[in-house]
Amino acid sequence: MRELASPERAREAIAGFESPDGTESIPVERASGRVLAESVDAAIDVPGFDRASKDGYAVRASDTTGAGEVDPVELRIAGRIDAGEKPDVPVESGTAIEIATGAVLPDGADAVVMVERCAERDGTVAIGRAVAPGANVMTAGSDVAAGDRALTAGTLLAPRTVGLLAAIGRETVPVRSEPIVGVLPTGDELVAPGDELAPEAGEIYDVNGTTIANAVREAGGDPVRYGILPDDEAEMRDTLSRAAAECDLLLTAGSTSAGSGDVLYRLVEADGELTIHGVTIKPGKPTIVGRYEGTPLVGLPGYPVSALSIFRLFVAPILREWTGADREATTLTGRLAISERYDEGRHRAVPVGIVRDGDGDLLVYPVDRGSGATTSLAYADGVVEMAADTRLLEVGEIVTVESFSTADRPPELLAVGEHDPGFLTAIEGIERTRYRTPGSAGGQRWLADGIADVAVVTGEISDGSAVETLGSWTREWGLLVADEVDVDGVAPLADGDYRFVNRSRDSGLRDAFEAAIDGCEDPSAVRDGITGYGVETQGIESPARRIARGDADVGLGLAATAARMDIGFRRLGAQSVSIVAASDRVDKPTVTRLAERLDDEKLFEGLTGYAVD
Amino acid sequence: MRELASPERAREAIAGFESPDGTESIPVERASGRVLAESVDAAIDVPGFDRASKDGYAVRASDTTGAGEVDPVELRIAGRIDAGEKPDVPVESGTAIEIATGAVLPDGADAVVMVERCAERDGTVAIGRAVAPGANVMTAGSDVAAGDRALTAGTLLAPRTVGLLAAIGRETVPVRSEPIVGVLPTGDELVAPGDELAPEAGEIYDVNGTTIANAVREAGGDPVRYGILPDDEAEMRDTLSRAAAECDLLLTAGSTSAGSGDVLYRLVEADGELTIHGVTIKPGKPTIVGRYEGTPLVGLPGYPVSALSIFRLFVAPILREWTGADREATTLTGRLAISERYDEGRHRAVPVGIVRDGDGDLLVYPVDRGSGATTSLAYADGVVEMAADTRLLEVGEIVTVESFSTADRPPELLAVGEHDPGFLTAIEGIERTRYRTPGSAGGQRWLADGIADVAVVTGEISDGSAVETLGSWTREWGLLVADEVDVDGVAPLADGDYRFVNRSRDSGLRDAFEAAIDGCEDPSAVRDGITGYGVETQGIESPARRIARGDADVGLGLAATAARMDIGFRRLGAQSVSIVAASDRVDKPTVTRLAERLDDEKLFEGLTGYAVD
Repeated sequence: MRELASPERAREAIAGFESPDGTESIPVERASGRVLAESVDAAIDVPGFDRASKDGYAVRASDTTGAGEVDPVELRIAGRIDAGEKPDVPVESGTAIEIATGAVLPDGADAVVMVERCAERDGTVAIGRAVAPGANVMTAGSDVAAGDRALTAGTLLAPRTVGLLAAIGRETVPVRSEPIVGVLPTGDELVAPGDELAPEAGEIYDVNGTTIANAVREAGGDPVRYGILPDDEAEMRDTLSRAAAECDLLLTAGSTSAGSGDVLYRLVEADGELTIHGVTIKPGKPTIVGRYEGTPLVGLPGYPVSALSIFRLFVAPILREWTGADREATTLTGRLAISERYDEGRHRAVPVGIVRDGDGDLLVYPVDRGSGATTSLAYADGVVEMAADTRLLEVGEIVTVESFSTADRPPELLAVGEHDPGFLTAIEGIERTRYRTPGSAGGQRWLADGIADVAVVTGEISDGSAVETLGSWTREWGLLVADEVDVDGVAPLADGDYRFVNRSRDSGLRDAFEAAIDGCEDPSAVRDGITGYGVETQGIESPARRIARGDADVGLGLAATAARMDIGFRRLGAQSVSIVAASDRVDKPTVTRLAERLDDEKLFEGLTGYAVD
Repeated sequence: MRELASPERAREAIAGFESPDGTESIPVERASGRVLAESVDAAIDVPGFDRASKDGYAVRASDTTGAGEVDPVELRIAGRIDAGEKPDVPVESGTAIEIATGAVLPDGADAVVMVERCAERDGTVAIGRAVAPGANVMTAGSDVAAGDRALTAGTLLAPRTVGLLAAIGRETVPVRSEPIVGVLPTGDELVAPGDELAPEAGEIYDVNGTTIANAVREAGGDPVRYGILPDDEAEMRDTLSRAAAECDLLLTAGSTSAGSGDVLYRLVEADGELTIHGVTIKPGKPTIVGRYEGTPLVGLPGYPVSALSIFRLFVAPILREWTGADREATTLTGRLAISERYDEGRHRAVPVGIVRDGDGDLLVYPVDRGSGATTSLAYADGVVEMAADTRLLEVGEIVTVESFSTADRPPELLAVGEHDPGFLTAIEGIERTRYRTPGSAGGQRWLADGIADVAVVTGEISDGSAVETLGSWTREWGLLVADEVDVDGVAPLADGDYRFVNRSRDSGLRDAFEAAIDGCEDPSAVRDGITGYGVETQGIESPARRIARGDADVGLGLAATAARMDIGFRRLGAQSVSIVAASDRVDKPTVTRLAERLDDEKLFEGLTGYAVD
């Protein structure tokens, strides 16, 4: 059996990749955020001339000796000079030249008297204060002198530093090139987003190409896509070879296990160097590190959460180091809402969600739904590192959450429970809302665990939780029927030969449906009689979509869904939906906002079959 | 006299500008960092089929009843299916199909037995464990169900959330448009960086156009440049009118005072609306807020520090609000190294520098050199807000520093003192170094104040400071002479008729030169005799540059400068340069690194006239 590497060894192997060290010249106009490749010395003095720093009169300081408010010195005004003008007369003894801030100090003058100390009359000016040589003059080069080191190599350019480059007349600036990173998701089952998908043939949209390309760009790299690699040795070899010639680093995703279909690691072994095959970390065990035809390669795991987690941990740091931008990962500190156990003795990056409690403090909770799920990626606000020898993180423990991205923001309203179109309408416009739909029981569990702000509940509200009901309504439910189908009630559904589509057991609609069956004379005969009773779907619209596609005749659903999708509807009943909030969250701004929305009697005007209680 | 507005009123006036509310469609591939304009619902189930979540055998769960390790159930293998394949045979009772992770569960099957529990032999498989229906199967839509709300409007997209968009097949996504911001620096004296500069006519390179364009981009806006506006009413009017038609917001810089040359505020008054003219804040008093032909306008002050300070305080927040990206300004907390007094009763944003002390803690010190200086922009790591009624910030007080940009990083080595090319060579490669050159006395003052890490000193090292010398060397200095000039020593310089260029009084070279004059028979006659003795320049290369331009015959300088610029040199002496570090900073990594560099005997190999002590 192959030997797994420790996370430290993986990090070292990746840190050992040589930096590409490229330099490019870009306009200073858009250089902020890039890293200066060479030190820049000023080629000119700033300002390039002795400059008046106040409005007033340019004079010879010696002419003002003894001047005071009661006993001013009178000087003849020999002219006037504005900013951006070349002086045409010098200041001779006994004369002054009116001067604007920023203008060139004329020859002969060595000081400026502020306008507030001067009184002009008939071509002369009365100077009310003596000045020393240099007064109100910014000498040439006093800001930046020619030959001065303006900025040192390695500076992460920001608006203020590009300002210095502008001041010394630089239009372009040498910066470190963005490392070119090839992004190569692999798998016969993957289809590029936007292309036609054949789910019946097991196709899924590729996620890793998109997430990794975005993450590379955020870490300062320039991602290059090579499409999706099929699990075909010849084709994979061709593409890898082309990418190796063009890129500074290759990032594949998938095909990294030692399984029979995984050809990548064999190619890396054959055409390059396989340094590491497997890491003692979760998620991310099937990670490989090596080179393909000399070019550094990291093979990320195929599951999106694992891929992004390994990217964050091992790849982002080397990209940041190469670009010299030392962008720091965003971290947040919060209190663990539920404990997390783990026993496998591997270093673990626990994906966690974050929510703000009633006091505005951050609560952290694990969200792992299995790394195969895309949603565990979208619902993870970051990860908490758990060392290999840590077996338990306890409730209340303060943990540090590392974000996947500097653009990551935790939600401000976390709603969990039954999927309900009315609730979607209610939260429309409340930004940074997260709405997860594991069903009513799930929602109340999240509420009881102190995680969710509000739960969307059909049926009974559990005892024991400290909750407040923010609002409630009823929704009509029943059978969604295809055009040519006429089935009116539960018993006829069991008697006829219809292809039925049910909902999953955690849904409130299913509860209502089961109650309706239980109201029949012989419930178990009804259940046996319905063809497709066992076909459980996860989404509230899934049955309707199957009917619309012609894959089913009848389905369980809402009047609102039927109306929206223009499908026939046979009403079986009306079901109550309640929105309950944890008592200690009712003062959260987003919860208050939701409560206000629920008070609006016209909220459901466009929604068929909805009635506010 | 016009009435100044409070900072609060200015903020309110700007907050009152209507949001542009534009939407554009961009590729998901590069959507990270942008804000979702509309909520996105899933149009498909993810996965789109019941999917094996383990390698193994697809079976009917009922066939495995009673199976155990000692008493396995034998099933006939009816086929094999991989990820991305369409099943061609169903699983009938008594059969199993070998299945790979990610593959479609064939018709008839309702569970997968992990390969670890199976033993294959002669076309049959021995199942060593009973499974329940659904075991190792991820049902269609269990990750994301069609109709689910995938992401809500207002989400700041990050790699993980764009992954969800990819999973549901989205190739493009509607995001909020970047507000189009016209950037219009004004002033007859301004020249665009890269263009020819005539300093003798009072021209300077424009700084605000570059800094503000970069700052706008960082705050999420799309800067559009309209060149530099001259102080000419007709031309300014034309450009403003065009920009007003094309932009969501106009940002001018300069021409905002009520001075005679400042025409901008009069145009805004005439062709639009001048809401605020002047704010009680420092820096930034000459700020205007209004509209030009209906388009919101903020007139930033002309001084770069003031302009960026007002941008940060008033303009960046509205851009962030418009884009919904709520990028937070970076803040740091540190201890004030020297006290700061202020008495004018205006709200003040004190530009400060930051340095890390020997313990790694942050020290904060005011850096205001007058807002006219570009360097006070580049040397300011951020600002500390000082309320109008705060008159004193005391040494040791803990203050919050708000950065101008998320790309701002404080230096890791702060060196202050004499300008010396040898020292520049020594710090080459030590990144994030800041080297300021107010002269030896200035450097030692910074050291005594506990701010600088090291000082570059010529001449005496002051008593009393707790310092350690890291290294020292000598540099040859003397007269730099133009080609046709032959002047050998100080006395001949006074006797002849040469155009001489001196250095400023704070420079070590000047000290050496004065000492040489004092060694002459009649020092004051020598000083009087040198034409240009009073022409003081700021940069170590300034005299050489004047000679190279033909504007001078003789100048004060180093052998190294003469050699580098290929100018004649007459040696007058050798001067000692010492690098001293504050005792409590010698263990700072960058100081240690510098000390190592100074130990290298070959450090100055390429530098003429340098000798390591």
